[in-house]
Amino acid sequence: MQASPHRRLLYKLIALILFVPASAPADEGMWLFNDLPKAYLKKKYGFEAADKWADHLMKASVRLNVGGSGSFVSSTGLVLTNHHVGSDTIQKLSTSENNYYRDGFLARTPSEELKAPDLELNQLVPIEDVTQRVQAVVKPGMTAEKANAARRAVIAEIEKESLDATKLRSNVVTLYGGARYHLYRYRQYTDVRLVWAPEKDIAFFGGDPDNFEYPRYDLDVCLFRVYEDDKPAKVEHFLRWSAAGAEDGELVFVSGNPGRTSRIYTLAAMKHLRDVRVPFTLDLLRRKEILLQQYGTEGTEQARQATDELFDVQNARKAYTGMLAGLQDLDVITQKAEEEKTLKAKAQADPKLLDNLTAWDQVAAAQETRASIQKQRLPFGTRLFDIAQTLVQMAAEDQKPNAERLAEYRESNRSSLEQELFSTAPIYPELEQFELADDLSLLAERRGGDESLVRLVLAGKSPRDRANEIVRGTKLADVQVRRRLAKGGQKAIEDSDDPMIRLARTVDAEARRLRKISEEQIEETERQAYQKIAEVIFAIKGTSTYPDATFTLRLSFGVVKGYQENGRQVPPWTTLGGAFRHAAAHGNKEPWKLPASWHKHKDDLDLETPFNFVCTADIIGGNSGSPVVNRAGEFVGIIFDGNIQSLTADYAYSEVQARAVAVHSSAIREAMRKIYGAGKLADELGK
Amino acid sequence: MQASPHRRLLYKLIALILFVPASAPADEGMWLFNDLPKAYLKKKYGFEAADKWADHLMKASVRLNVGGSGSFVSSTGLVLTNHHVGSDTIQKLSTSENNYYRDGFLARTPSEELKAPDLELNQLVPIEDVTQRVQAVVKPGMTAEKANAARRAVIAEIEKESLDATKLRSNVVTLYGGARYHLYRYRQYTDVRLVWAPEKDIAFFGGDPDNFEYPRYDLDVCLFRVYEDDKPAKVEHFLRWSAAGAEDGELVFVSGNPGRTSRIYTLAAMKHLRDVRVPFTLDLLRRKEILLQQYGTEGTEQARQATDELFDVQNARKAYTGMLAGLQDLDVITQKAEEEKTLKAKAQADPKLLDNLTAWDQVAAAQETRASIQKQRLPFGTRLFDIAQTLVQMAAEDQKPNAERLAEYRESNRSSLEQELFSTAPIYPELEQFELADDLSLLAERRGGDESLVRLVLAGKSPRDRANEIVRGTKLADVQVRRRLAKGGQKAIEDSDDPMIRLARTVDAEARRLRKISEEQIEETERQAYQKIAEVIFAIKGTSTYPDATFTLRLSFGVVKGYQENGRQVPPWTTLGGAFRHAAAHGNKEPWKLPASWHKHKDDLDLETPFNFVCTADIIGGNSGSPVVNRAGEFVGIIFDGNIQSLTADYAYSEVQARAVAVHSSAIREAMRKIYGAGKLADELGK
Repeated sequence: MQASPHRRLLYKLIALILFVPASAPADEGMWLFNDLPKAYLKKKYGFEAADKWADHLMKASVRLNVGGSGSFVSSTGLVLTNHHVGSDTIQKLSTSENNYYRDGFLARTPSEELKAPDLELNQLVPIEDVTQRVQAVVKPGMTAEKANAARRAVIAEIEKESLDATKLRSNVVTLYGGARYHLYRYRQYTDVRLVWAPEKDIAFFGGDPDNFEYPRYDLDVCLFRVYEDDKPAKVEHFLRWSAAGAEDGELVFVSGNPGRTSRIYTLAAMKHLRDVRVPFTLDLLRRKEILLQQYGTEGTEQARQATDELFDVQNARKAYTGMLAGLQDLDVITQKAEEEKTLKAKAQADPKLLDNLTAWDQVAAAQETRASIQKQRLPFGTRLFDIAQTLVQMAAEDQKPNAERLAEYRESNRSSLEQELFSTAPIYPELEQFELADDLSLLAERRGGDESLVRLVLAGKSPRDRANEIVRGTKLADVQVRRRLAKGGQKAIEDSDDPMIRLARTVDAEARRLRKISEEQIEETERQAYQKIAEVIFAIKGTSTYPDATFTLRLSFGVVKGYQENGRQVPPWTTLGGAFRHAAAHGNKEPWKLPASWHKHKDDLDLETPFNFVCTADIIGGNSGSPVVNRAGEFVGIIFDGNIQSLTADYAYSEVQARAVAVHSSAIREAMRKIYGAGKLADELGK
Repeated sequence: MQASPHRRLLYKLIALILFVPASAPADEGMWLFNDLPKAYLKKKYGFEAADKWADHLMKASVRLNVGGSGSFVSSTGLVLTNHHVGSDTIQKLSTSENNYYRDGFLARTPSEELKAPDLELNQLVPIEDVTQRVQAVVKPGMTAEKANAARRAVIAEIEKESLDATKLRSNVVTLYGGARYHLYRYRQYTDVRLVWAPEKDIAFFGGDPDNFEYPRYDLDVCLFRVYEDDKPAKVEHFLRWSAAGAEDGELVFVSGNPGRTSRIYTLAAMKHLRDVRVPFTLDLLRRKEILLQQYGTEGTEQARQATDELFDVQNARKAYTGMLAGLQDLDVITQKAEEEKTLKAKAQADPKLLDNLTAWDQVAAAQETRASIQKQRLPFGTRLFDIAQTLVQMAAEDQKPNAERLAEYRESNRSSLEQELFSTAPIYPELEQFELADDLSLLAERRGGDESLVRLVLAGKSPRDRANEIVRGTKLADVQVRRRLAKGGQKAIEDSDDPMIRLARTVDAEARRLRKISEEQIEETERQAYQKIAEVIFAIKGTSTYPDATFTLRLSFGVVKGYQENGRQVPPWTTLGGAFRHAAAHGNKEPWKLPASWHKHKDDLDLETPFNFVCTADIIGGNSGSPVVNRAGEFVGIIFDGNIQSLTADYAYSEVQARAVAVHSSAIREAMRKIYGAGKLADELGK
């Protein structure tokens, strides 16, 4: 389905692959809930991470299918997440008349709560290690293609068995790049309703300029409620609300779903990022940013339609820029080179690991392959195209045995897939045309205007004319048409003369060819190589380490702590009063314009209330919306950003200046009560 | 020196190379003043283009070194050009306290006129054909390198002789891609003062969204005055002011300096543009656009510093986007392929032209070479770097005989070079750092972080830290330091430890290597090939055609005429009243916010006064500021833009929808008198 928007700590933000640090100094680590660093916590902080404590926190945490994290904060099914995580839904629920995204929203009674068109929440239930069963199917001497097929088949089998037995969403997760496989089961919530959201201007106060900066003053939160059988769900595991929040220097925990890190990356893989992949991605993001800005200049309604995606793109551009700056720093590369030397020396010295030495060359070769297909990548990513592609591929995949299907078409993922495919979220034809025209142009730019697929796709027209023709002609904006096509299967797809379906059909062979290269030649090679590298790391460090992030639930920890920057001490906290001063310092102009509601209720507020704060916990994109809890497991805040120094977290943790940025628990309640007239709702929190 | 900003019809906007259409149907053509299409004008319009008429118009026209055109409009030295041509100077004369760029400027007496720091105006005096002398030095069998050196030497000799004999700036211009060489002599005006400019909000009303669109409502004009011996110059050739402007359907002429067209391009060259060069350029422009936007978010003063360059970049991005869309249209490519077939058939059939058949392969080979060095291009373009590079190269070039120097360091160009090098225009260190950091990052992205030059340049630091170190350390912002270094010659450069000079020295060998490849392998090959292709064209069409634009003076013509668009008739005129309606239709919001002065004086205005108008004349970037005159040679308007349909003018003229957009003479006088209190100045116009 549609490549989900990139945004701050949303998972897809830093969609780069893989895992594991050599050691875990300081408060580094995104730990597995079934393998917590109990000894370290005990030793350094005198904290006992009891199983019951961890199990409760795990079950009070949720993952959102739009790419973020959240938590249950009441027995009545309230879920707190970031506004920028909920914004995809808030935007879909908004119209030019009722712009909840801009103006905020409050349901005064449950009956006013608004059902999200395609939001899905996942609650993790305990994890099962299935490494042996998965690894057993790959025999020595198998080709990469065979190995991949065998592994895919056994994973599908495990998932299917689990789904049938438990009725829970079941996914096998590859950890340590292939050294471990765990089965994750999730309770799915698909009836999710919007309860409260503040105005965009305070949720994203300071906008793009302040994004990834600190100090901050953002009320980046919103509340949903999960329903079961059309009634608010009764939730057993939810977080109690801390009365005062955390103190300076206090130990805190972050429970959320970091998207992707690349800490196991080899030197060659990091250089590929630095010289090829990140520059390529940045060119794309800048292109999208300009495109959406241009669309927005066409009118107020166009600006509204584009705004959420525009912020996401700006956010990703800023994140990647920071990441590239880090990669271009010689120290980073030198450190990685030294780590690699140590690992290779270990492999060289240990006869059992000697074979593992080939891993580094394998990873390098995979980067070459990746670079070689980069310009061939199909750029299509509009909502209507994604719908068409899903329909076309689903019809074909459904004719195969479950185990042989592409991952997203397996039965274990079907309900999530349909949730998105049949979503009633609005589609904006003018924006679709605008974006498709640019995708078509990009296709021609990447492959050259003479290439046969380009000629076939453009059909003798300019990208703009062709895009207009396709978007005007397609009926896929109508959910009933999608349902009919999905039901009709392969024959319905073949018979369809819908121009978007035809486009998806035209490019399907090429899309599959490229995916095959990615999965079988690149990712499989990397998986096998990183498995070997992980074995060398385990040999040095033991297994008391954590795998690279995989958009699955992890526990991070750290302390509330300011830092030094340009010779100044940056304090760990800001206050509500600081927001007014920050706005005034920028002339109260966009994007530093506080909402009218804030000015109106300024005198009601306790301006000394803590607003945002920072801690040293190890987080990355995907952690957006993660609860921050204290030793007692009480809610003290919610992660919404990292500072600019944290943008290198993809490949290295640091606690010198890098900080996770959170909204303070007190600010949320204070604002709900004094500004938003949501006192009753605020009273529900933590109960 | 600094790559001058790109802007609308400024010359450098579409800095792509070359020439000649097969035939000249309709009102196509950018004609040489010494080879006007007299017969066509006589036949179609009954107009006699008398030598005296043409000579007067030629001498009333000026070229500006910032990349635009203008005209003398009074005997007292007043020069009218576009605000967006003058904006470079207006911006340099502005400070955060006196923001003439934003607020406008009026000198009530000559003593209040503000001297431009580095503006140069060139007035063309008659042209001399030196083709035989130039072509005679290239002997059959010479290598490209030898041929280039011999040609460069004879051109330098011709220019030097002319300079010594006439004291006039003398440049040999390559026409028809190498089939003709003309000696152009210019009277130089270097004491140019700002007299009047309106506010940016009306000069560029509608901003980026309205740019290249029509209908328009822009007062895109400003007035300078040339001085001699510290007194307003007495000018013999200036344009009379038309009382009423031109009527619908009336024949008009445009006298200006179109920058570059590519109408002679072969199919291979056009495909290179489509698949390689334009996409590459667009990525760069988007990158610059985002960078300048980001800088502007840091504060009001930063936004002011970046604004003019930002508009230029946005303009270029929009222009190239339109150009690419045209190139991706199959019809355009098909038409070129057919033209090429005709030319090749002619060469095939004529024994005298048989050798010329190799030309097409030569051009194709040159494109391959061009593509191969594209990623190696050095991205440095900040003002301080340009100064450093000029100093470093000038010291080295001055040790060579004049004829062997790089073109810009020859004696015939020295005064213009020094005008820029020693300009007192403000330099903004923070912006310089910001831009240099991005240039350094781009260097590493293009060449890979491990490349030796990249390592040398970054010196172990991140691009940002390195840029800060260099910009903080350099003294080149001080004009006296530049003068001392220039005077000190090679030894001073070698001894200098100024970090920007050292950077320029570090990259100099590579810069020269790439330039040598460009000049000797690519451009020389193209020159020889296009000369052959031009011979084939001459054999078919005779010489009654025009060469591709070369940023030298040309005459275009056409009629005032509306057009059909999306089934609507677009009228040729807008009115002053229309500007108020257009603003209201956009909620009077940026960039459709009329200046306060316009609202204040609305009631004084004759709202029916024509404001902007379109005509079919064949123009392109560089024509910005060109006077539009009627048969009597009277000023009826000033070109400032082309509509979106004209963006393909680089490679094809069309009169179906493509239009040149001009400010009407009546609007200029009306606004000066009724809004700007510049009645006295308005009375001076045309007298």
